[in-house]
Amino acid sequence: MHLLIIGAAGMIGRKLAERVAVTGRIGDRAVDTLTLADVVEPEAAQDFAGTRHAVTADLTEPGTAERLIGARPDIVVHLAAIVSGEAEADFDKGYRINLDGTRALFDAIRLTDGYAPRVVYASSLAVFGAPFPDVIADDFHLTPLTSYGTQKVMGELLLDDYSRRGFMDGVGIRFPTICIRPGRPNKAASGFFSGILREPLNGQEAVLPVDEDVRHWHASPRSAVGFIEHAATMDTAALGSRRNVTMPGVSATVGDQIKALRQVAGDATAALIRREPDPTIARIVGGWPRDFDTARARDLGFRAETSFREIIEVYVEDELDGKLPSG
Amino acid sequence: MHLLIIGAAGMIGRKLAERVAVTGRIGDRAVDTLTLADVVEPEAAQDFAGTRHAVTADLTEPGTAERLIGARPDIVVHLAAIVSGEAEADFDKGYRINLDGTRALFDAIRLTDGYAPRVVYASSLAVFGAPFPDVIADDFHLTPLTSYGTQKVMGELLLDDYSRRGFMDGVGIRFPTICIRPGRPNKAASGFFSGILREPLNGQEAVLPVDEDVRHWHASPRSAVGFIEHAATMDTAALGSRRNVTMPGVSATVGDQIKALRQVAGDATAALIRREPDPTIARIVGGWPRDFDTARARDLGFRAETSFREIIEVYVEDELDGKLPSG
Repeated sequence: MHLLIIGAAGMIGRKLAERVAVTGRIGDRAVDTLTLADVVEPEAAQDFAGTRHAVTADLTEPGTAERLIGARPDIVVHLAAIVSGEAEADFDKGYRINLDGTRALFDAIRLTDGYAPRVVYASSLAVFGAPFPDVIADDFHLTPLTSYGTQKVMGELLLDDYSRRGFMDGVGIRFPTICIRPGRPNKAASGFFSGILREPLNGQEAVLPVDEDVRHWHASPRSAVGFIEHAATMDTAALGSRRNVTMPGVSATVGDQIKALRQVAGDATAALIRREPDPTIARIVGGWPRDFDTARARDLGFRAETSFREIIEVYVEDELDGKLPSG
Repeated sequence: MHLLIIGAAGMIGRKLAERVAVTGRIGDRAVDTLTLADVVEPEAAQDFAGTRHAVTADLTEPGTAERLIGARPDIVVHLAAIVSGEAEADFDKGYRINLDGTRALFDAIRLTDGYAPRVVYASSLAVFGAPFPDVIADDFHLTPLTSYGTQKVMGELLLDDYSRRGFMDGVGIRFPTICIRPGRPNKAASGFFSGILREPLNGQEAVLPVDEDVRHWHASPRSAVGFIEHAATMDTAALGSRRNVTMPGVSATVGDQIKALRQVAGDATAALIRREPDPTIARIVGGWPRDFDTARARDLGFRAETSFREIIEVYVEDELDGKLPSG
């Protein structure tokens, strides 16, 4: 079976590729050919036992989608996108990459005769826009408040329509905020959700710019890879005509996060969090969703952590070789 | 003030243009220049007292949107679309006209410096897809089951995003099924909703292909014009970030329709309806929405008929010069 991952140089794409390399499978399906594509050459999964292709490809360039689809991969995982901040800063680039790039991919698939692969599409909580109910139901309307969110909904709609027409067999997954993101601190407004845990777990100080009662929706990178694996191999009949699904996660306040950090790593580690209120970040984050009813996703077999403590333990296992900071 | 109507040769476009010609206004704003555009030359409003332009224009041809927007009309009413059946039959044409045409128009507006006109966008109940609750709330999610519905939602999303960015001041209106449509019978699955009233009111037999308990959502052509006039001139601050609104209407069963016809025009007229069940039409119509909670639209000042009797009376006044069939 041939698996194509587009956006394979990103954090989730790399983790997915590494897992496929280790297991030789995605979900319950054996992978013999793995094609990794991104705008920069993907480095992951060098030790994959099957045939591995690394492709530098920009979906917005004419012919690129057709070239990627030419080998008729059985499963296409489409993670390529520019992020929220960049799509907001550069209007044309956001629509070109997130909308036109996705449509180019879907059309290349549509126009390949006798071909209808499983397509896993990475969507986002940004498809939702405030004001929200406290718990957002699966049938809540999609009213994004960013260009990124708008582009992601448009991709969801194409996925539904192209699947209904039989051009592909799509599953759209709306990722929670991924926590704890490995790597270095970044400037994203959401960065502190990971930073206040990651930096202390690495023995470093972290800044908390919002109040402890700020609530948000989280899942680990390991869960994110699991969502993709399940979406790539599940029986899509259960989805009916609504192929985009809000993924399960943990609704937690910042206070819950800190409490879990203290439980896992002790008071001294939690004491590395320094309060430094930032009204701008507080205002941005104040408009974000806090909690979801994801009964549908769970009924469909998607699984995430069930406590924030578990999210932290996943990070310690996957990124710190199980080692907690001393002291 | 300059009003541009795109899709001015269609039924609603013609009625809107005629009304502007008669009143010299749209809503409470005086119109001195009226530009009518369509893929065939618009014939309406020949007697408009101001400056009238009739333009043959296809939004999907390069440069057309720029040409229409070049004169910087203050209000742009965008009614141009291919209908549901055609968008389903011709995939490429549907996306080209309904999505790319709309985007070309919106981008021509966006790229005109210092210009942010009121844009009224015709959307549709087709943005919703079964299964539905009995009454569809304003925050029900958008899960279209046709390519037409998909394209209409994508236009709604662009309208929201382009308005949020300040490129335009958009209002999207989701029309009910328009009843009683004037003119000749057509082959649309929805055609009988008008036909079982229009043909008897014109002394002719009509065919009813579904059961009398089929329920649907209706408003008159006069209300449709009123929706556009209100959307063109309302204070959009009240819309907040959610600029697409399900219009008010009358939820009525076919039985309610026939009862109202009997009340207005007598038993002999209603007896011209011949039952001829068509399982295909019954199945299609069975997937359509039945009722909406449109408190939001009414709070925003949109008005429709409140009974089916009123919808019939509007037809008799506007299309039959107030004359009922004899007998």
